[in-house]
Amino acid sequence: MMRKIEHIGIAVKNLEESIKNYTLILGVPCYKREKVESEYVETAFFLTGENKIELLEAKHPDSAIAKFLEKKGEGIHHIAFDVEDIFKEMERLKLEGYTLLNEQPKRGADNKLICFVHPKETNGVLMELCQEIR
Amino acid sequence: MMRKIEHIGIAVKNLEESIKNYTLILGVPCYKREKVESEYVETAFFLTGENKIELLEAKHPDSAIAKFLEKKGEGIHHIAFDVEDIFKEMERLKLEGYTLLNEQPKRGADNKLICFVHPKETNGVLMELCQEIR
Repeated sequence: MMRKIEHIGIAVKNLEESIKNYTLILGVPCYKREKVESEYVETAFFLTGENKIELLEAKHPDSAIAKFLEKKGEGIHHIAFDVEDIFKEMERLKLEGYTLLNEQPKRGADNKLICFVHPKETNGVLMELCQEIR
Repeated sequence: MMRKIEHIGIAVKNLEESIKNYTLILGVPCYKREKVESEYVETAFFLTGENKIELLEAKHPDSAIAKFLEKKGEGIHHIAFDVEDIFKEMERLKLEGYTLLNEQPKRGADNKLICFVHPKETNGVLMELCQEIR
């Protein structure tokens, strides 16, 4: 079961400018910046209540974000749902017939284990499961 | 200030099938269906913690959702943020230089006053402000 929207990931071309923009739009400051080397991205986080907005800038042409920007331009890249136990939730979704984009959880930004569900089975939405690393 | 993500709006071709799909993915049932005549859409809501997922099916070719589906296919259409006072928040954003897609709040689904911000100024994200009608 998805407990809440943990964050929404937004692909941006220029992180610096987008941070300024989202600080104004959301009315709250960016509370963290973090590079995720394995994904070739730099991220910036904002907190809106219990939910986060994650801005993502590509740091390499091979990054999924670079490909997304090239194909679709800036915009919402994924929704991440907070789960209690990512292994259990991955198992549940597999049993329901969903395709997971990684067989094992991988390490994401913000101290999380993450896994993506194939967007062809979620009405075009790239969905991330994420669990806090305890 | 945006208090939380109120909901994420997802454009779908077939509401009936998508409700079944999201019931499985999210692990919670749809708690409400509602037609919004003024927007030519039918909606279905799911609750994930404090946040909602809204599925939207077009009921007329002139609906914004029909146009979105034609251009981009199924997927995330907008993010809606909960605000305390929509008039105040609209005024704040206008003063910061943002373009609002409607000058006055309009009535949306789920007993809300809503207003959209132009996606060209929010890194490609169609953003909705929404305030519960009290």
